[in-house]
Order: sequence, then structure tokens, then C-alpha cells
Amino acid sequence: MKSAVSPSELRHKIRSGEHIGNTSGSAPGFVQCNIVILPASHADDFLRFCQLNPKPCPLIAKTEPGSVALPTLGDIDIRSDIPRYRVFREGELSEEVANISALWRDDLVTFALGCSFSFEEALLADGLEVRNISQGVNVPMYRTNIDCTASGVFSGKMVVSMRPYRAAEAIRAIQICSRFPAVHGAPIHLGDPQLIGIAELSQPDYGDAVRLEEGELPVFWACGVTPQIALQAAKLPLAITHSPGCMLVTDMRNSQLAVQ
Amino acid sequence: MKSAVSPSELRHKIRSGEHIGNTSGSAPGFVQCNIVILPASHADDFLRFCQLNPKPCPLIAKTEPGSVALPTLGDIDIRSDIPRYRVFREGELSEEVANISALWRDDLVTFALGCSFSFEEALLADGLEVRNISQGVNVPMYRTNIDCTASGVFSGKMVVSMRPYRAAEAIRAIQICSRFPAVHGAPIHLGDPQLIGIAELSQPDYGDAVRLEEGELPVFWACGVTPQIALQAAKLPLAITHSPGCMLVTDMRNSQLAVQ
Repeated sequence: MKSAVSPSELRHKIRSGEHIGNTSGSAPGFVQCNIVILPASHADDFLRFCQLNPKPCPLIAKTEPGSVALPTLGDIDIRSDIPRYRVFREGELSEEVANISALWRDDLVTFALGCSFSFEEALLADGLEVRNISQGVNVPMYRTNIDCTASGVFSGKMVVSMRPYRAAEAIRAIQICSRFPAVHGAPIHLGDPQLIGIAELSQPDYGDAVRLEEGELPVFWACGVTPQIALQAAKLPLAITHSPGCMLVTDMRNSQLAVQ
Repeated sequence: MKSAVSPSELRHKIRSGEHIGNTSGSAPGFVQCNIVILPASHADDFLRFCQLNPKPCPLIAKTEPGSVALPTLGDIDIRSDIPRYRVFREGELSEEVANISALWRDDLVTFALGCSFSFEEALLADGLEVRNISQGVNVPMYRTNIDCTASGVFSGKMVVSMRPYRAAEAIRAIQICSRFPAVHGAPIHLGDPQLIGIAELSQPDYGDAVRLEEGELPVFWACGVTPQIALQAAKLPLAITHSPGCMLVTDMRNSQLAVQ
């Protein structure tokens, strides 16, 4: 059994290379963030993209250019405190690394965005099943026909994650997730997938398919892959993100994100 | 155009016989209540029935035996302040009257229950359509296969009302109605009607059918007809209710029922 580790201890293990790989299930109760790092020349446009599309891109924190600290989220050095980074050049994945100190520049701006781990924890705490967790797979994600509102070079379709629920459970999940707008908030759709441009639930664009039981509705949440797709499509000379599942673990408690 | 009238003025007009008929749309912004009046010998069981089934039977106020006042809801005389009453004997409708002073007894207890008018107002205020209002008909209501939790002689199936919405609107309606547990709260089901024992949406058990547009889901709320059905099935020697649509208009504002 994994012994409980504080977010700060976990980040120290990540920083020292003792913890590698994904952070799912680590430091339960604490907010984990999607990370986007890009040059200051595009930071204002990306900030506005987040503000215009708050459900897929819920902004929790942002640095000033060159700063590696995120003091509202903990004693963080963003160059070393994520287990695995993806480096994109001109929109193409160029390398995956465990530390970005060698790439650091004085004009880089870091954005920390909310992640579904927080609301999945709230759903589980209420006694709801989270099918991707029960099945031990990645959540299924789909590219929809819903356009994000564009900002500068950033645009694209909204990506959603899907979790199946019976109607009464879906209603409860909507109530629970409405309390957490900083981690994607309430679902954006439920029922017929074709109404948002999803042809086939069994063939997700990202992640793994999950079982849909009789009487269950697919319930769709805006997903943090949306800004990553928009970022890649923007083909910036340099952009850095976390690797999927390898998040920034913060000192902020999930419950602190609740608006009620 | 109907001039705005205060709840107190409206009750005086009702008491004097100047206002007869239904109260829908009168004194907008103020809570209107379903009313159940029954002998004290069954009042504890009915109170418990309400507590056990809060979504169809959201209790807002209750009198002591013989009292005709509901001071928390306004300067009310329950014998005269409803436009039209239904009198049931042994579960059968025996008469409809405009005043129950002649029937009053020292052992009668009055229950005031929340009504869908309040949440429909909240939905409209948020820009959502309420189809039964748009179409100018009574809301369609259906007997489900969901058992209420019984209490003494009171039991029965839950009755639901239905309003159609697109998925994103249904999610918003759930958020809005979750704030108002005292007027049925969040929907109890959406999507496939057969999952709650409704065979045919076009054939409601009470009220009128409404149009379902392509891409819309039927959304179902627990309905105040539920306790009326339970009351009739209990076949009490005497029970009195409001007539459908002829509610008790109170001085309480709908917004005061919001839990957040």
C-alpha cells in the first residue's frame, strides 16, 4: 500500500528524480494541474484563450515572464517539479524530458490549469463510480464539433472526456461538479454523442474506451486536452507541457476550489 | 395587461370573492403553495410522508391542529384565502368550494408544500424556455414506477412533471433547480422515459402533452400531484386540498427559498 505523502514531499521526490512517471492517485486530496509553458510573446493571447474558454481551460495560476515559482500553489520550481515534460517545437513533439532547466528562458510564462483528477475525487467521495478508474484505464476523450472561441493564434475544437452514469447519477454528478468551476465544472453535454459531433463512443480520439451499461447515459466534460491541441496547432517555436498523467502536484486542497 | 398586485392584496381579493380561479402568473416573484388539509389523527403520518419523500412533497409550513393561520407565509386565513378548494370524503372528490369555513374543525391540520411555479420562474429568469408556458398548456405529468417511501396510510407511486430541454439547457436547469429544494429541487430523471415506467410521452396521466423538438431530452421533476394521489389513496373520511392551479399565494419571495 502506497503510504500517504504530502504534496511538498512528493515534489521533492520528483525534483530529485526519486519519483518518476504519473502522479495519478498520489497526494490524494490535493489539486493537480495541467501545465502550459510558452514565450511571453504569446502569453497574453493564451491567457485570453483561457478566459474565453473557461470550461476546457480553467486557469488556476500564471507566472510573470521568467519566473519559475508558483507561490499560490506551493514551494514550486516549475523547471524540475513535474515528473515528465513534453517539449514542442513548431507544434511538433520534439522530446520528453524530466527537467527543463536547460531549456529555461527569461521570457517563458507558465500557466497552471485545473485537471479532472479533482472532480473525479469529488465524485468518488459522493459514492459515484468513475468508470475509467474502476476499469483501470485512461478516461476516453473525444474531439467534438464545438469551436472554442479563438484568441490570436489559439483556436480549435473542444475536446471532452466521457464518464457513463444512470440519469439520477448524472444529475448528482452535475450538482457536484458545479461546485468546482476551476476543474472544468459541470458537464457540457449528456446523451446523444452525435449532437456534439462524436460518431462512435467506442473509438475515442484519446485515452481508452470504457463500458457503457444498459440504462446509462454518456456524460461529457470539457477536457484539459483542449488547450494542448490549441497549443500544438499554434505551432509556436517553443512550447512545453506536462506529459499526460504527469501533473504538477500542488499544496492546494481540492476542497479549496469549491465555490460553495 | 394585468397590473402587479401584492400577495396580500391578492389574498384579500380571493377572500372577498373578487378573484376567482387560478393563480398562475399572479403576484409574480412570490411563492405559491400546494395545500393539504387533513385531520390531526393522520397528520403525523402525513408529516413523515413528506419528510421521507422530500422531492415530491417539499414541506414549507404546517399548522397546529385547528389553527387557520400560517404566520410564516403571511397574514393568512386558510379557510378563505385559496380561490378554490377540493373536498375529498373517503378518497372521493365530493365537492369544489370557494370557502371551507363551514367545514372547519378544531382537529384539522394544514400542510403547505412547494410548487413548480417557483422553479419555472427561476428557469425563465435564466433565459430558459418552459415549454408548457410557451405552449400555454398545463405541464404534462406522468405516474412513474418509482415507489414513494410509505408512512402509515400514505403511499403510492411518484408523479413527475416533464419539460423538454437540449442537453446543455438540461444541465443548466439542474444547476438552477438544485438551489431550490423547497420547490421540488433538481430533476429526478432525464432521457429515456421507460426507465421510470413512462410508456408514452404523448399521453400524460395528468395535464397536457407538449412538443419535444429534435435533439431535446425530456427532463422530469418530482411533482406535487404525488402527495395528492397518496392522500386520495389513503381514503380518509375528510381531506381538503387546493384545486389544481388555484394555489395559496404567500408573502415569501421565491428567492428566499434559494439555499445558495
